[in-house]
Amino acid sequence: MNEIKFRKIIREDLADVFLLLNQLKEKDINTIDSETAWKNFKSNSSSNSIVCIYNDRVVAYGSIVIENKIRGDIAGHVEDIVVDDSMRGKMVGVKLINKLINIGSEKGCYRITLFCEEKLINFYERTGFKVNNIMMKKFL
Amino acid sequence: MNEIKFRKIIREDLADVFLLLNQLKEKDINTIDSETAWKNFKSNSSSNSIVCIYNDRVVAYGSIVIENKIRGDIAGHVEDIVVDDSMRGKMVGVKLINKLINIGSEKGCYRITLFCEEKLINFYERTGFKVNNIMMKKFL
Repeated sequence: MNEIKFRKIIREDLADVFLLLNQLKEKDINTIDSETAWKNFKSNSSSNSIVCIYNDRVVAYGSIVIENKIRGDIAGHVEDIVVDDSMRGKMVGVKLINKLINIGSEKGCYRITLFCEEKLINFYERTGFKVNNIMMKKFL
Repeated sequence: MNEIKFRKIIREDLADVFLLLNQLKEKDINTIDSETAWKNFKSNSSSNSIVCIYNDRVVAYGSIVIENKIRGDIAGHVEDIVVDDSMRGKMVGVKLINKLINIGSEKGCYRITLFCEEKLINFYERTGFKVNNIMMKKFL
């Protein structure tokens, strides 16, 4: 059986990750300036993203944003979790979240938060998250 | 009448902000290493915090974390909103949120998110936020 591996995202993963993220939220890939997107992503040291590789293919993506709070605490925010449809049932999602939790732990986070739809509560509870509050959003 | 002013946080605000944040979430201020907290806060360019000044006193604090997403989008997360109890009813909270929204807008955010308790939904709706999803949390 082929192994599922996780590693930090590299520039060469971008095209695959763009396709994958379209399963989460559609965006016209032709409108993305990959060079600028990559440069800006790398320039923001608080964004940490990993990919999951299976059969030499990127099959999952996730990110954790690290926040340095004014009183010295460090908080993590899990963002943009997506697992390829073909990989359901292989525990890829749980492993991905655990990898991001590990990154948060290494960075010294005292807590990690995430937003999700109600139907995903059970999934995130499997990695130790608990429903805490309301998430509100404003588009600019 | 004295004017309410907003500006970026400076090192000299720290003691006041620590006291203010204790109205939100208690933390033993003596345990905070201000020098390290300030250095780490400043080193993370994605954290932007402002204070509200009234009668030469820091009476409100809020932060917006800027996230560079892998597809080039920029997202903002509003964090740690606190208004001094003595300032209730002066629209300080709404003005503070609007200042943070402006910062997000200047930074190119396409959307801003925040977590809050159910009782604060009405307040945030006044600045254009809408209930969107569930927030989950895990302590490390």
